[in-house]
Amino acid sequence: VSTHSGEFERIASLSRIYAGTHGAVMLGIGDDCAVLAGSASARVWTVDTAVAGVHFDLAFMPLHDVGYRAFMAAASDVAAMGARAEAALSSLIVPPDLDDAALYALAEGIAAAAREVGASVAGGNLARGRELSITTTVLGVADGRVVTRAGARPGDGVFVTGVLGAAALGLVALRAGADVAEALEPSRARAVRHFLAPSARFDRSGLVSRSASAAIDVSDGLVQDLGHLAAASGVGITVELARVPRVDEHAALALALGSDPVALLLSGGEDYELAFTAPRDAVPNALATCIGIVKAGAGVVVVDEAGERIDVGAGHDHFVR
Amino acid sequence: VSTHSGEFERIASLSRIYAGTHGAVMLGIGDDCAVLAGSASARVWTVDTAVAGVHFDLAFMPLHDVGYRAFMAAASDVAAMGARAEAALSSLIVPPDLDDAALYALAEGIAAAAREVGASVAGGNLARGRELSITTTVLGVADGRVVTRAGARPGDGVFVTGVLGAAALGLVALRAGADVAEALEPSRARAVRHFLAPSARFDRSGLVSRSASAAIDVSDGLVQDLGHLAAASGVGITVELARVPRVDEHAALALALGSDPVALLLSGGEDYELAFTAPRDAVPNALATCIGIVKAGAGVVVVDEAGERIDVGAGHDHFVR
Repeated sequence: VSTHSGEFERIASLSRIYAGTHGAVMLGIGDDCAVLAGSASARVWTVDTAVAGVHFDLAFMPLHDVGYRAFMAAASDVAAMGARAEAALSSLIVPPDLDDAALYALAEGIAAAAREVGASVAGGNLARGRELSITTTVLGVADGRVVTRAGARPGDGVFVTGVLGAAALGLVALRAGADVAEALEPSRARAVRHFLAPSARFDRSGLVSRSASAAIDVSDGLVQDLGHLAAASGVGITVELARVPRVDEHAALALALGSDPVALLLSGGEDYELAFTAPRDAVPNALATCIGIVKAGAGVVVVDEAGERIDVGAGHDHFVR
Repeated sequence: VSTHSGEFERIASLSRIYAGTHGAVMLGIGDDCAVLAGSASARVWTVDTAVAGVHFDLAFMPLHDVGYRAFMAAASDVAAMGARAEAALSSLIVPPDLDDAALYALAEGIAAAAREVGASVAGGNLARGRELSITTTVLGVADGRVVTRAGARPGDGVFVTGVLGAAALGLVALRAGADVAEALEPSRARAVRHFLAPSARFDRSGLVSRSASAAIDVSDGLVQDLGHLAAASGVGITVELARVPRVDEHAALALALGSDPVALLLSGGEDYELAFTAPRDAVPNALATCIGIVKAGAGVVVVDEAGERIDVGAGHDHFVR
């Protein structure tokens, strides 16, 4: 039995793998184009690429998780507009040494992420190359208002969903490889899970599209991404370090692994949480954490509990950027 | 002056390059997603990837043309549905040695092709990698009926637009490099142009969406692509070699370059013409050439003027497939 099928056979297999995903697709894999059902709502779409050795490392990441993360990274951009993901195209460049089992593990991860967000993988492309890469195009639909990066107003609160720094800590732990003290093992497993299987934060409650003045997803690190939002909105942002949501046990693990917990929190990327601005009384605590305030001016400043400014390094480096 | 800008600077430059493209985009480059205007029509979208050394060779192809062709190859899939291209996302993997001038030449080619088909480059992605690749996602809209590969009926005529084999001959000429006899030079220039600057065949007359029972674009070679159409439709197709439209002067050039003119005609790819089936009296000669007939059965047969079956080799190999 050959472990390298022909192109059409591989596409047929991918088509079966993607068949379990769902969305508003009238015609999917197997023709020149996928056909989407018409809609009067605003459509949003994005594309994101993950390259082996740059955005992921097969030495310590299973291919299923590589596919899952690559899809979520693209879907997260749709979430950051206050929209929901509807359909996706997945374009792969596949090196000769990647066999069928590896390819299908990758595709299963992509399909799992698509199902998780309720989107359909409507088509894609397979090309040969020397370097594995996954390019995901996601089309989303905004039932309400589309929320951009440009709309934050002085006086708005700054909010984030979930916890930050966990994915970057998981990457540090995976890279370190070695076992950690037994007491730290649950924290390690949780951080690794954050890194390998992030969830794009779709606005199921409608909070973001109803209340947010501006939004972005945390992919490059909190301070860097808030910097993009501040620049697009023409405002400044002050973040209070103590308010930034985190997993308490992660600080001990970070120190044990030789990493700075504060740097992970402020500059660690790939959490795929949402950061957004909104009137301060518009956001229930259960849905997001208020971490700071929008001010007139420019740039992002982080302050400690005494109000002293904290020096923040550069943004998250993904892999080898 | 550095020839390698930072990522954000490069994106800003690409955004300016793409600003001259047009389409139904409410929000383009600079946020997490592009936003498309709502519509009640069917949307079609596709993705296609071109990889250096596989689909193009920088040794004899200018980067502008590489971008132009990569875009047209994707747009052609939209044309093959009887739809028009509306907007595109362009995702590039860029190796460290590709400098700004090269990147912008590539992007200018992409933008030129987008303008040519009336589409907007609404966004994209830049990733680092070792191998240059261009992944183009095109979203199209079908004002009329969407035409798939599955709909050909026995008795339908088989039609193609333009001429075939010209792009493959242009590639042969570029690879050969050497000068040809002066008398062949105009043919050579014309064939090279066909290869470097193909045009996706959008259905401006509405003929395809009105009359075609099935359609596909000729990217892998006439016989191979008609084979996909026949398989999807559950029919057989007979093509008369003498009717396949060609540039008469190309036969002499092909022979001078050591290539088989018939093989180029039947198996040469990347012409990006449309092949479609339709009732035989529904297609004016000025718009497309009737080259054969749909029959009950399966597969594609090519016959000579005596009705004898001609042996046809494999499809076009793009570059090194």
